[in-house]
Amino acid sequence: MKNYKIINGTILTYGGEAMMTEEKTLYIKEGKITFEPFAQGEEYEVIDAGRKLIMPGLINMHTHAYMTMMRNYADDVPFQEWLFQRVMPVEDNLPVEAAYWTSMLGILEMIRTGTTCFTDMHMYHRQVTQAAREAGIRAYIGRGLVGEDLYQDGYSRFKQALEEKEEFQSDTLQFILSPHAIYTCSEKLLKQVDEAAGEHRMLKQIHLSESMTELNDCLNNHGKTPVQYLNDIGFLDEKTILAHCVQMQGDDLDIIRNTGATIVTNVASNAKLGNGIAPLSQMKEMGINVCVGTDGAASNNTLNMFREMGLLSLMHKAHTRDCLAIPSDYIVKAATYNGSVALHNPDIGVIREGAVADLIFLNLDAPSLFPNNNILSALCYSANGSEVESVMINGKFVMRDRQLLTIDQERVYYEVGKIVEKNL
Amino acid sequence: MKNYKIINGTILTYGGEAMMTEEKTLYIKEGKITFEPFAQGEEYEVIDAGRKLIMPGLINMHTHAYMTMMRNYADDVPFQEWLFQRVMPVEDNLPVEAAYWTSMLGILEMIRTGTTCFTDMHMYHRQVTQAAREAGIRAYIGRGLVGEDLYQDGYSRFKQALEEKEEFQSDTLQFILSPHAIYTCSEKLLKQVDEAAGEHRMLKQIHLSESMTELNDCLNNHGKTPVQYLNDIGFLDEKTILAHCVQMQGDDLDIIRNTGATIVTNVASNAKLGNGIAPLSQMKEMGINVCVGTDGAASNNTLNMFREMGLLSLMHKAHTRDCLAIPSDYIVKAATYNGSVALHNPDIGVIREGAVADLIFLNLDAPSLFPNNNILSALCYSANGSEVESVMINGKFVMRDRQLLTIDQERVYYEVGKIVEKNL
Repeated sequence: MKNYKIINGTILTYGGEAMMTEEKTLYIKEGKITFEPFAQGEEYEVIDAGRKLIMPGLINMHTHAYMTMMRNYADDVPFQEWLFQRVMPVEDNLPVEAAYWTSMLGILEMIRTGTTCFTDMHMYHRQVTQAAREAGIRAYIGRGLVGEDLYQDGYSRFKQALEEKEEFQSDTLQFILSPHAIYTCSEKLLKQVDEAAGEHRMLKQIHLSESMTELNDCLNNHGKTPVQYLNDIGFLDEKTILAHCVQMQGDDLDIIRNTGATIVTNVASNAKLGNGIAPLSQMKEMGINVCVGTDGAASNNTLNMFREMGLLSLMHKAHTRDCLAIPSDYIVKAATYNGSVALHNPDIGVIREGAVADLIFLNLDAPSLFPNNNILSALCYSANGSEVESVMINGKFVMRDRQLLTIDQERVYYEVGKIVEKNL
Repeated sequence: MKNYKIINGTILTYGGEAMMTEEKTLYIKEGKITFEPFAQGEEYEVIDAGRKLIMPGLINMHTHAYMTMMRNYADDVPFQEWLFQRVMPVEDNLPVEAAYWTSMLGILEMIRTGTTCFTDMHMYHRQVTQAAREAGIRAYIGRGLVGEDLYQDGYSRFKQALEEKEEFQSDTLQFILSPHAIYTCSEKLLKQVDEAAGEHRMLKQIHLSESMTELNDCLNNHGKTPVQYLNDIGFLDEKTILAHCVQMQGDDLDIIRNTGATIVTNVASNAKLGNGIAPLSQMKEMGINVCVGTDGAASNNTLNMFREMGLLSLMHKAHTRDCLAIPSDYIVKAATYNGSVALHNPDIGVIREGAVADLIFLNLDAPSLFPNNNILSALCYSANGSEVESVMINGKFVMRDRQLLTIDQERVYYEVGKIVEKNL
């Protein structure tokens, strides 16, 4: 494995207090970050990172990579039309092999815009895994689960998820359990997933309280909110990742905080599908672990985390009419470090001695960042993702000077083009 | 002047009905767009625009280009601190010559992200004009005016504005009158500006109803809203451009519609400074001419119109919980064609026979745009500005294949770096 000595770079560090930048030499030894120089005789490449910002790769905590083929495919239409007439018919007819190429397209966009780790929820056996593995991106892959009984109608998917875990789990690939939502999974199945997660030491991710319809149906059917419902069946704990959480009522946020579950906010998707704005200021005040997700490209329409970060802060400043709401350091931490908390992997999302080298290199001379008056502000308020020049994951470059090293972009476009032509 | 035949491109056209794309050969003859082939013997260069989208350049209808040096300089601070402790002290001490370089930095960012025309409000004699002229960008330049009497305390600025108009007015440079706001200009001065605008055939731009403070002060001082106040003194007409219009009350929007004035919405700035969200859905329903502005980099923090366009739609979808609010075709039209209406220049903002060639070329294979399921959606929901490869203004390329042809970026950075070091 290649070692690196990275000189002259501006490093974004976080030690549990404030985020800060410093100019510092960084060493990548056996895929890990260290500040200790190499011993004599050790081989390494020297990288001059002058006028580059080196920061932890972004962690996209909720997406559906295979949906990238549906980018800009169903916009400005009512939600029911979006789901039932546009998205679902495509999903129902998509050949399983196609999901490899469409996932690769999403991974390609994520790498180019500085994401080094993503949490996926999908319905294709092996395709996302295969794409993530070949691309060399860190991924937490969750097979979508629905139905009445995990060991009957849900069994083939669940079994395949465990097989994939057995076969492919690695330094960069982990597997999680992803029951789709409380309205597509029975109480029984959710309890079974919870038990299976404990038994197999897996994280759980679920869509929760995304729309008013979900909230109202749950209130009607169970006499409680989706959060109360999940809590009452014992589903919520610190290994639970809750995507959306837009429609928070009563003591919902208290419950989430007390169980230690993570919330992934998906501001563009919630906006685009008419679901409104999650109460992020309260989540922040309460100290809930909040992460950032792009959701899939059919509901965003980009997997660019920098777009999401800026949107997140500005949306909440506008909505609360408070220019101090959701400041840039909170945003950058949510998109990096908080992912490591949610994923119970303290070695990602931060630049420190011993952390794995998931790093992105941004051009500080990009017109969006210059002059460099405040790096955290820049990442949140003016960056657009195109500043990312190089991406290292687990100590290996997957993009260098904008050249993708693990993905054949031309081939991916060719294959996705054919799939789109046939299926959309 | 060089002529061009542009083949294989995808052209975004608008003829007063729907925006649409078509593959079509475009000819640029004497700086103007035509669909008529060249006569035999005419000289021209052939450009292969295969896999490129050719669309009208974006029109940034409200900015302060010289403020780009303050990008990411004052964020997440209360408005009063932002204005009085951060921005104003810098402006007060900035040497007038510095504004040339800081304006050029803003123009550089605008060109790189596809803006071919901007409306500026500034306080430096000649510097913005000089920068715009050298860069070859189309600009409507407004000298900021404040005070009691245009012919006494406001006279030197006003006189300089007229001199500049006399000296520099051209195909691409126009001059407008820009009284700063109702709280920095007396009623007398505003009436004088209105008369002078008529006499000198100039447009007027003013900040209006931006903050709650402005609204409440106006209600207290005049017993009417800022819009009513301006209307009652006869200031509003179809040659008036109103920046912000966030705090709309009672019949404010009816008044604006009836006078034919244009509103420039500045969604990022309004969010960042805690001013909230303009009632864009009502403006749209009422058929008011709405344009898009970035405001200055101190309150945005980028002059990237694509960021602004996406934000504008998503912000209003979230705020209204309506996934049909402010669709992509409305956004693209607001950022192009509506600018031509506001500026009373029907030859810009649209690709049609006889229009001036203010064109931008986007890479349809950019990861943010691929697959190309819907171009208008892409421009609004997934583009980030980095897709812009070439920019033509008034028939001349100012950027080609990402190379700036009229601006020496290295020199601009060097000079702005020195200015920032000394003044921030």
